[in-house]
Amino acid sequence: QSSVTVFGIVDAGVQYLKNGDKTLHLLSTDGQQSSRFGLRGVEELGGGLKAGFHLEGALNPDTGTADSNRFWGRRATVSLISDAAGEVRLGRDFTPTFWSISRFNVFGTNGVGGANNLIYGFDGSSSSAKTIVRSDNSVGYFLPEKLGGVYGQAMVAAGEGSDGKYLGLRLGYATGPFDVAVALSETDNPGGKKFKVYNLGASYKIGDAQLMGLYHVSKEGAREQANYVLGAIYKIGAGQLRASYVHSENSGDLKKGDYSGNLFAVGYRHNLSKRTSLYSTISRVDNSDKGSFVIRGGSAVQAGQSSTGFEAGITHSF
Amino acid sequence: QSSVTVFGIVDAGVQYLKNGDKTLHLLSTDGQQSSRFGLRGVEELGGGLKAGFHLEGALNPDTGTADSNRFWGRRATVSLISDAAGEVRLGRDFTPTFWSISRFNVFGTNGVGGANNLIYGFDGSSSSAKTIVRSDNSVGYFLPEKLGGVYGQAMVAAGEGSDGKYLGLRLGYATGPFDVAVALSETDNPGGKKFKVYNLGASYKIGDAQLMGLYHVSKEGAREQANYVLGAIYKIGAGQLRASYVHSENSGDLKKGDYSGNLFAVGYRHNLSKRTSLYSTISRVDNSDKGSFVIRGGSAVQAGQSSTGFEAGITHSF
Amino acid sequence: QSSVTVFGIVDAGVQYLKNGDKTLHLLSTDGQQSSRFGLRGVEELGGGLKAGFHLEGALNPDTGTADSNRFWGRRATVSLISDAAGEVRLGRDFTPTFWSISRFNVFGTNGVGGANNLIYGFDGSSSSAKTIVRSDNSVGYFLPEKLGGVYGQAMVAAGEGSDGKYLGLRLGYATGPFDVAVALSETDNPGGKKFKVYNLGASYKIGDAQLMGLYHVSKEGAREQANYVLGAIYKIGAGQLRASYVHSENSGDLKKGDYSGNLFAVGYRHNLSKRTSLYSTISRVDNSDKGSFVIRGGSAVQAGQSSTGFEAGITHSF
Repeated sequence: QSSVTVFGIVDAGVQYLKNGDKTLHLLSTDGQQSSRFGLRGVEELGGGLKAGFHLEGALNPDTGTADSNRFWGRRATVSLISDAAGEVRLGRDFTPTFWSISRFNVFGTNGVGGANNLIYGFDGSSSSAKTIVRSDNSVGYFLPEKLGGVYGQAMVAAGEGSDGKYLGLRLGYATGPFDVAVALSETDNPGGKKFKVYNLGASYKIGDAQLMGLYHVSKEGAREQANYVLGAIYKIGAGQLRASYVHSENSGDLKKGDYSGNLFAVGYRHNLSKRTSLYSTISRVDNSDKGSFVIRGGSAVQAGQSSTGFEAGITHSF
Repeated sequence: QSSVTVFGIVDAGVQYLKNGDKTLHLLSTDGQQSSRFGLRGVEELGGGLKAGFHLEGALNPDTGTADSNRFWGRRATVSLISDAAGEVRLGRDFTPTFWSISRFNVFGTNGVGGANNLIYGFDGSSSSAKTIVRSDNSVGYFLPEKLGGVYGQAMVAAGEGSDGKYLGLRLGYATGPFDVAVALSETDNPGGKKFKVYNLGASYKIGDAQLMGLYHVSKEGAREQANYVLGAIYKIGAGQLRASYVHSENSGDLKKGDYSGNLFAVGYRHNLSKRTSLYSTISRVDNSDKGSFVIRGGSAVQAGQSSTGFEAGITHSF
Repeated sequence: QSSVTVFGIVDAGVQYLKNGDKTLHLLSTDGQQSSRFGLRGVEELGGGLKAGFHLEGALNPDTGTADSNRFWGRRATVSLISDAAGEVRLGRDFTPTFWSISRFNVFGTNGVGGANNLIYGFDGSSSSAKTIVRSDNSVGYFLPEKLGGVYGQAMVAAGEGSDGKYLGLRLGYATGPFDVAVALSETDNPGGKKFKVYNLGASYKIGDAQLMGLYHVSKEGAREQANYVLGAIYKIGAGQLRASYVHSENSGDLKKGDYSGNLFAVGYRHNLSKRTSLYSTISRVDNSDKGSFVIRGGSAVQAGQSSTGFEAGITHSF
C-alpha cells in the first residue's frame, strides 16, 4: 500500500517538578517530542505536480488519551504541490510564526527546557493566543524548495463569520551552516482585539556545535511580551549536549511593575538509533517580583517564586 | 501486512454562501466527497466463504476534528460473505434507503449542489430522521453479486429497549447502461412515532452522458416531504460537467401553505488522477412563500428567502 | 513500512438478556474478544536491545463509537527491552493482577460467560476499582522471557498529586502442561482508602482438555469480595467446548447477610481460520437473598433475582 504512511511518536518519561514550594512526581510525556499518530502520503501527478495529504493528532501515553476535541488537531491538510511554483495547502496547519519558535530553540517546544514554557506564558495556549501554534480554516502557500536557500510561506485563515481570521508570513534563508528567518502574524481575537506575533531567529553550525537565537514578541492591545532565546547543541558521539537560556518580559500588563522571568535548561540526548533516543533535562525558571512564569504541567506559583524541573525519558518514532 | 488496508479521503476547498442577505466565506470541507479515515480487509476462508471488516469515520480537515461522538461513525461492521449465498453484516452501517439518495444523485450527498441540502431538510440529520443515512445495532443481508444484474439488501436493527428499531429493504437491477432501484424503511422514533422512507431511482448512460432521476419520500406521522431529483453528467476528457435540479415539498406540516423549494446546481470536476480531482460547483435554492430550505453550512433563512453557494476544492483519496 | 503493524479485532453478535423479569435483545459486541484498533512495533537496536511501542483502544461496532475519553485507553506504552535483563515499560497498561483474571478464565473477561460479570461486581469498573484492569501513569518491569518458565512483572504508578498511586506484582511459572501465577496490588483510592487485590490462578492441559482455576479477592476498607472460578476447555476438531463456574461472595458490606452469586456458563467456539471464529454462549447468574449480581449489559436486578444470557457472534482479527 504505497499511498499512505502510518507514522507516529511515543515519548514518555519520569518527571519531578517543584513550583514554589509544591513538589510533584509525574509519569510525564512529550519531554523531547510531542507524542502523535499520523497518516500522510504524496501522489505523483506527472509534470512536476504532486498531491499530498497529512493527518496528525496528539496522544498521551500516560493516560491513553488522544485529543478528544481535535483527534487530528496537530495537522489536517490536503495539498497541491508544484516543483516550480510551490505548494498550496488547505486545512488546519501550523502557523508561520510557530515554525521559528520550534526551529531556533534547542529544546523545541517540549519538556521542562522548552522556551515555550515562557513564550506561551503570555496567555498559555488560551483562546486569545490560539494561533500561536496552529490555525483552523487556513489556506497556506509555500515557496518551492529550489530557490537557492530561500524558503517561505504565507497563511490566511477564514474567520467564518466569527473570530480567528488570520494572516501570517515567514521568510528565511538557509545556506551552508547558516539559517535565518523572520515571521509575523495577525489574528482577529474576540472583542475586536488583534493578536500580533513577530519573531526573528537564526542558527549557525561550527564543527560539532550549533548556536541558536530567537527574538519573539506577542502582542494583544496594550499587552506585550518580548522573549529572548539563546541556545547551543554540542554533538558527542551518538549524543547531544543541549543548553538554553530564555528571558521573557511582559509590558503593558495590568500587573504593574517588572513582570519577567528567566529559564535556564541543560539536557542530554542519547540516540540509540535514528528512531529511538533517551533524554534527560534539568531546568529552572526564576521570576521577577511580579513574575509568575512556571514550567508547565505543575501548579501555579505565587509572584516571584521559582520553578524547577527534571525529567528523563525515551522517545520512539515509528 | 495483507490483512488490513488503511484508506481515506481528504476533501477541502473554499466556499461562499449567501443565505438570505447574510454572506459567509468558509474554508469548506467535503464539497465533493466526505473526508474520512478507515480500515478494511477481507479474508479468504476457502470454499467461497470470506470474512471481512470495515471501520470508517468522518474527519474535518478545516479544524482537525474527527467525529467526537462516533469515531468510526460512518461504518463499523464485521461480515461473513458467501459467493453463493450473499453477505451477513453486523454493526453500524448505511441504511438501504440511503444508497439510492447517493447513487442516483450527480452530486451525491456532498457540497453546495447535493440533493441532500433539501432532502435532509425534512428534519436535517436530527434525531427524528437519524436513520436517513445510517443505523446503529444493525444486522444486514446483501444478495450475492452474481445474480444477472439483480442486487439488493435487507437491514434490521435492534431498538435495544429504546427507540431506533429499524427495518429496511432495497432491490435493484443494473444491466448495460441501465440501473434502477427501489428502497423503503421504517424506524421506531421517540414518542411511538414511525419514521418512514421510500424511494425509487434510476440512471441511464448514453455515450458520454449519464442521466439520473430519484423520487424520495420521508414521512413521520402526518408530516411528509416528497423530493424529485433530476441530474446529468457529461464527460469531457478528464473532466465531468454535472447539473442537478431538485424539487422538495412538505405536506401535513404545522406550517400551513406551500412549503417547498427548488435547488439548481452546476459543477465541473477535473480528474488529475484516479485519486485526486479538482472541483467547482455553484448552486441556488429558491423557496416558496413558506419554504426555508438552505444550502447547509450557513445560517438559517427566513421563509421565502433564497440561498446561493459557490465552492472550489480538491479531493484526494488514499 | 516495517516499523508499524496496524491491527485490531471486530467482534459482534446478537444477544438475549433476561435480568429479573426484564428481557432485552441486543446487537452485542465483544462476546468473545474486545473489539479494538491498535498500532504496535518493535525496533532492533542491536546487542540484544529493542525498543517497542503499543497503542491500542476500544471500539464498538454496534454504534461506531471508540472510547471517547481514552482513544488509546486499552494500552499506550513505550518500552525498552533487553533479552537478558527484561523490559521497562512506560504509560497506560494492564495491571499485573488483571492478567490472571484473563489468563485463568475460559471465557476471559468477555461476554455473557465471563467471570468478570461477577468479579467486577465488587464495584464494576467504577472509580474505586479503576485499577482492576489498567492503570494510568505506570512504570512497569517485566522479567526476561528465558528464565526456565518463570515469568513476572512489577508495576508502579504515580498518583501525580491525586489518587491512583499504585503498586502491583505478578509471579508465575509455566512448564509443559502446567501454568500457575500469583499476583497482588494496592491502589490509593479517593478518601485515603486502599483498594487491594490479590489472586492465585492455575491451568493444566490433559490431552484435548484444559482445566483452569482462579481465586481472586478485591478489598477496600472493610469491604471484601472473594471469587472462585473453575473452567474447562475441550478441543473438538476446529472447535472448542467451554464451561465455567464462578462463585462470588461479599463480606463486610453495608448490606448485611449473604451477598453472593453463582455464574454457570457453557459455550462453543468454531474457528473458521486463525483470524476468524464463530461463537455461542449461554449463561446464568443466580443470587443469594441479598445478592444482585447480573450479566453486564442489561438492567439491574432486585436482590435475589437471577440473570440469564445467550449470545451468538463472530470474531474477526486483522
